Amino acid sequence: MKAEILATGDEIRSGALVDSNSAFVADQLEANGIAVVRHTSVGDHLETLTATLIEIGRRADVAVVTGGLGPTVDDRSAEAAARAAGVEPMFNEIAWKNVESFFKTFNRPMSPSNRKQALLPSGCGVLPNAVGTAPGFFLTIERCRFFFLPGVPYEMKRMLVEQVIPELLRLQGAAALHSRVKTITTFGLPESLAGEKMEGVEAAFPGITLGLRANFPQIQIKLYGRDNDAARLDQRLRDAGRWAIERLGSHVISDNGESMETVVGRRLQAQSATLALAESCTGGLIANWLTNVAGSSTYFLFSGVTYSNQAKIAVLGVNPETIDRFGAVSEETAQEMAVGARRVAGATYGLATSGIAGPDGGSDEKPVGTVCIGFAGPKGAWGRRLTFSFGKRLMNKKVFAMAALDLLRKEMG
Amino acid sequence: MKAEILATGDEIRSGALVDSNSAFVADQLEANGIAVVRHTSVGDHLETLTATLIEIGRRADVAVVTGGLGPTVDDRSAEAAARAAGVEPMFNEIAWKNVESFFKTFNRPMSPSNRKQALLPSGCGVLPNAVGTAPGFFLTIERCRFFFLPGVPYEMKRMLVEQVIPELLRLQGAAALHSRVKTITTFGLPESLAGEKMEGVEAAFPGITLGLRANFPQIQIKLYGRDNDAARLDQRLRDAGRWAIERLGSHVISDNGESMETVVGRRLQAQSATLALAESCTGGLIANWLTNVAGSSTYFLFSGVTYSNQAKIAVLGVNPETIDRFGAVSEETAQEMAVGARRVAGATYGLATSGIAGPDGGSDEKPVGTVCIGFAGPKGAWGRRLTFSFGKRLMNKKVFAMAALDLLRKEMG
Repeated sequence: MKAEILATGDEIRSGALVDSNSAFVADQLEANGIAVVRHTSVGDHLETLTATLIEIGRRADVAVVTGGLGPTVDDRSAEAAARAAGVEPMFNEIAWKNVESFFKTFNRPMSPSNRKQALLPSGCGVLPNAVGTAPGFFLTIERCRFFFLPGVPYEMKRMLVEQVIPELLRLQGAAALHSRVKTITTFGLPESLAGEKMEGVEAAFPGITLGLRANFPQIQIKLYGRDNDAARLDQRLRDAGRWAIERLGSHVISDNGESMETVVGRRLQAQSATLALAESCTGGLIANWLTNVAGSSTYFLFSGVTYSNQAKIAVLGVNPETIDRFGAVSEETAQEMAVGARRVAGATYGLATSGIAGPDGGSDEKPVGTVCIGFAGPKGAWGRRLTFSFGKRLMNKKVFAMAALDLLRKEMG
Repeated sequence: MKAEILATGDEIRSGALVDSNSAFVADQLEANGIAVVRHTSVGDHLETLTATLIEIGRRADVAVVTGGLGPTVDDRSAEAAARAAGVEPMFNEIAWKNVESFFKTFNRPMSPSNRKQALLPSGCGVLPNAVGTAPGFFLTIERCRFFFLPGVPYEMKRMLVEQVIPELLRLQGAAALHSRVKTITTFGLPESLAGEKMEGVEAAFPGITLGLRANFPQIQIKLYGRDNDAARLDQRLRDAGRWAIERLGSHVISDNGESMETVVGRRLQAQSATLALAESCTGGLIANWLTNVAGSSTYFLFSGVTYSNQAKIAVLGVNPETIDRFGAVSEETAQEMAVGARRVAGATYGLATSGIAGPDGGSDEKPVGTVCIGFAGPKGAWGRRLTFSFGKRLMNKKVFAMAALDLLRKEMG
């Protein structure tokens, strides 16, 4: 079954908006054994939209279209779909009930333009939208079954996963394959090296395909598997996962796609431990990551984002002589920052960063990209220096923050 | 002149990677008066790639292709381009010199596979790459001039802006229009309301087109202008900008596309003032934003990310009775946090957040989405309560952080 994806809207066409919907749709389709051949984006122009639908309808077996279902005159997907299928737009009672019930549930005032959202191609099936005003629909154009979804990502995602994917799996019928994906999150290996380490996995485990997804500075190793026997598939994916984890060693953060901050948070929780940070060069990024996880208040107590030396001294109790003698960016200062954060907050662990994110502030001895990481725990404290060469300020902040969490993760055991 | 954009690579086709290159290319082309009609993405399959190039070559006047110029066997853009143009791939001396000089400049070891990067379609022109290993090239397929660029975003962007755009403007020749864009950054208006406020701008200022770009929780209003008379264009864009800014009022953060953190940072710098933060619910996000700006150490001193009440008391000197009586999420506590952060760091201004980002912790009186913002300055201190209803934890963190910076911006005058 060959699939295509069409993202509509002048914002995407003109580059005002990055189209992240198509990647989500492609990932879901591929993970369910449906081969995605092509993505297309066009604007809101009715004739172009209609012609593109017909063109895709002649090439693909199934297609997912996002966008153009809203209440404004720019939203033209339903009209174009009707033209492409050679039918009339009609007021659809089922779609209208969906629109009405959304406004009732969320207690919002309806505007007359919302009536337009129930004007759908005659003969189409309705895909209800539980979390937005725009119902989706499906119909056949040329030889292809099209699914039209709204462009708002969280509405689209929910409707795709809950309604479109099950329907596509039904369409696949007897030819349906079970499909699974195993995601291993790593830190510390460049993408090319991670790829090299995974070489041979497809040969060793037939039916497994490899994907790498960089989410700087983390890299996800994805093992996709398909088989008509679910038990055999699970076994093969487990084996391939073990093989991969052994090769990736201590670079593996999690074997289920979880992020560093989630893994560190859960370890702290499992130990009934708490954490305090002292961040200079990372500027609050570590605290921000950790507090993105719901429930983090049970283990995250405090971060002293001490950009100035005075704050390092006043808040964390760093000895001014340490800064004078070794510099603010030094193993010694970082260690004292970690000790200070731990003491001030009464935490089990203290973790500190002091470094040079750039673009300025580097020297021969301590170039941009240098970070000193301090740790303090029940068994003692230490400082360590690392150097990275990504060059850019924001990349440095991220890799410094991730390296600090990685050392904490390993230290916690 | 009609343009199309093609993004190649299995990572994009399969959804492993979001294609942000196409939006960048489209934005640049549109800003330079070149109409983008369609984006396409296909994988690394040679026949598909070749057929797609021919198809685009029959429809478009110019096309920009990204990806597939690397040294591996998956990189097939040059081979497909040669096939589509009906020419042979040839070893290109100019491209080879570019590859060699990159490795020399960055002192990196070359691998034999890099030789493949100089195998380009016979008769093409080379687009040198100053910051990466993959040279680009241009050639004509069917009736369309194609520009092939690497997929690495910062290499692609630089080559597009420095080499492709000037060449496209030359190709436009006498028909060339001057093209400008004015970007107004706003906060506090939903996208729909911002759009309504801008209604009529295109009618009032002929030649100006309106675009909205949501970068939650900021919204950018873009006014695109084209004219063959540069002075007239500048005047019209200034007039339209004034019209827009008057309608948007105090929601305008900047009239040149700058972000909140940049604007706040510059105001602090202009006043020779410094800032200290106390962040509870925003968890370090404000500090992280501010320190993303290079040079922020001249005005940003400290953030106390005090998730625990003990840290609020110990680090910021909040009175335990205030927390007992009014709660950690209260105008009173937020005000004391701001006063404490200002005092501890010796800063001109103190700014504090305490709120409920969710998903848990809400009550009838203080639901999820409630934030209390505290301010302290030379002339006094205050606390204020705001409520948002975005529902999601990460959206709440962002809107809380932005609201706090917005109040600071207005308070600084």
